[in-house]
Amino acid sequence: MSSSVQLLGISNAIVDILAHVDEEFLDRIGAPRGSMTLIDEKRAREIYAMMGPATEMSGGSVANTIAGFANMGGSAAYIGNVRDDQLGEIFNHDMRSLGVDVRLAPAGEGSPTARCHVLIDQDGQRTMQTYLGACTELGLADITETTIGQPQITLLEGYVWDIPEGPQLLAEAMRIAQAGGSKIALSLSDSYCVQRHREEFMAAVRSSVDIVCADEDEMTELFQVESFEQVLPLLDGFDNLFAMTRSEKGSVIVHGDETFVQAAEPVKKVIDSTGAGDAYTAAFLFGLANDKPLDECARLGTWVATQVIQQVGARIEKGILDNY
Amino acid sequence: MSSSVQLLGISNAIVDILAHVDEEFLDRIGAPRGSMTLIDEKRAREIYAMMGPATEMSGGSVANTIAGFANMGGSAAYIGNVRDDQLGEIFNHDMRSLGVDVRLAPAGEGSPTARCHVLIDQDGQRTMQTYLGACTELGLADITETTIGQPQITLLEGYVWDIPEGPQLLAEAMRIAQAGGSKIALSLSDSYCVQRHREEFMAAVRSSVDIVCADEDEMTELFQVESFEQVLPLLDGFDNLFAMTRSEKGSVIVHGDETFVQAAEPVKKVIDSTGAGDAYTAAFLFGLANDKPLDECARLGTWVATQVIQQVGARIEKGILDNY
Repeated sequence: MSSSVQLLGISNAIVDILAHVDEEFLDRIGAPRGSMTLIDEKRAREIYAMMGPATEMSGGSVANTIAGFANMGGSAAYIGNVRDDQLGEIFNHDMRSLGVDVRLAPAGEGSPTARCHVLIDQDGQRTMQTYLGACTELGLADITETTIGQPQITLLEGYVWDIPEGPQLLAEAMRIAQAGGSKIALSLSDSYCVQRHREEFMAAVRSSVDIVCADEDEMTELFQVESFEQVLPLLDGFDNLFAMTRSEKGSVIVHGDETFVQAAEPVKKVIDSTGAGDAYTAAFLFGLANDKPLDECARLGTWVATQVIQQVGARIEKGILDNY
Repeated sequence: MSSSVQLLGISNAIVDILAHVDEEFLDRIGAPRGSMTLIDEKRAREIYAMMGPATEMSGGSVANTIAGFANMGGSAAYIGNVRDDQLGEIFNHDMRSLGVDVRLAPAGEGSPTARCHVLIDQDGQRTMQTYLGACTELGLADITETTIGQPQITLLEGYVWDIPEGPQLLAEAMRIAQAGGSKIALSLSDSYCVQRHREEFMAAVRSSVDIVCADEDEMTELFQVESFEQVLPLLDGFDNLFAMTRSEKGSVIVHGDETFVQAAEPVKKVIDSTGAGDAYTAAFLFGLANDKPLDECARLGTWVATQVIQQVGARIEKGILDNY
């Protein structure tokens, strides 16, 4: 049955528009360095008009994870809403060309396909201004037994809680997926997203989520503590699997009584740190889906993320595991 | 007067869709390595469906030259036809963001904006499959005293002879531009294009063109000789200025009795040879427009082209002359 993929992702389907900017640009638009801000269409036009020449490529956090998972050889499916416009065609093409089963047809009406203006400063840090467009029109009606199928793991994106029907459609997705035997994974997206939806995230983690994928900032935000060290004892009461990344400090996996600390790999030069977390998630879940022990999943996650930050672009390239 | 720019380009306005492919892919679609093939919309859909995940960026040969000229600090204008779709918006944005005066509004009807499927093989060589779309609808009506203005130099693209009204609109453009005191420059595009339009190109060179920008293959094709050495004596009867690039053999400038040979610069590693010729043309014309002597124009052209082949992407980056 074609819907029995290893990994199904549900997320905001976004095309990135990348351009280099100077610090002064970020001041002018009032964007904190490294932040992700949601903007409306009018503001998106203003920002774009201020930007220099750009490059376009498919993006989105969980979408990057799904693409990476497929590129590693995993079977994957995807639910996200694009319009039937050229950017939507680009997004779906890039998914399908990796063998990802795109479960929704592009919308024939409504807002245009989402775009994220990725502003890269002199230090290579990225500040994002996201116009969600068609993503906001992903709805409860898109979540059915047919579109969900029976994936081994269903990966939800924290950002989907930002869209109007997000909370309901995610609840329905978890219900259908679990009824079909799927594990539920949740990516916490970013610490501001956690701030916006802390209660909902915590409720989901306590009730339905099996696997939490997060970085240390998202975890401290979720538990409202100062440091990652304070997070660890608080995980005692949870039976979820936590896969937590800490940049150059490596990653920590906690599952009940088990804790694995995975050191980071030496990096010659960070070319582009974008997508490191998404790549880690892709590889970690790839390990899980292939019944690898947790420490091996963590090692694979670290190895793949380390490759991704030494290349330009957020997505895992084909054949990456040939060198593993 | 705003239309008195240094350089006006008239060319096919194209968005590149770049993806890596293996040799087998090129065999499968029957494309000779390094070639540029014109394809229709149906074939474009087929090729795109076969391609892996891609990156999109504004392209087009003379359009790259115009963008580079503007990025070096020159004043530039552009005439090319895009549709009012997302790729058209991207193309015009990328031009305008460099200060280029885009002279035509996007078409409200007709074919979608042109795209070039750029297939990059293991050696970094590029094979192009171009769907001209909206470019083919550039027409005589778009060429007026208002859209042409009074540029110092008007640069025409050989590829425009491929479109239905190309020959007429180019003749009209040359007439209006020359009446306004503009020099006419012609880029020969590629040797297959010269093959398709040899007679027209030669007639234009003999009658209206002041500056011929070409590589050695295009020149041997134009004069139907075996080697570049055989071209040189044949230029005796011409009073045009010929700026001819020869890859690692440098470039040769011929103008009447004057001949300058400009050696290539040492290159550490060719990252991406795309756009070297377009960049050379941009810098050479930038020198000319700023009244530099021919040998200095050639030196600048070589230096800029050498920078461009040591970066990813075909377009000259902003601030490139800071290091000259």
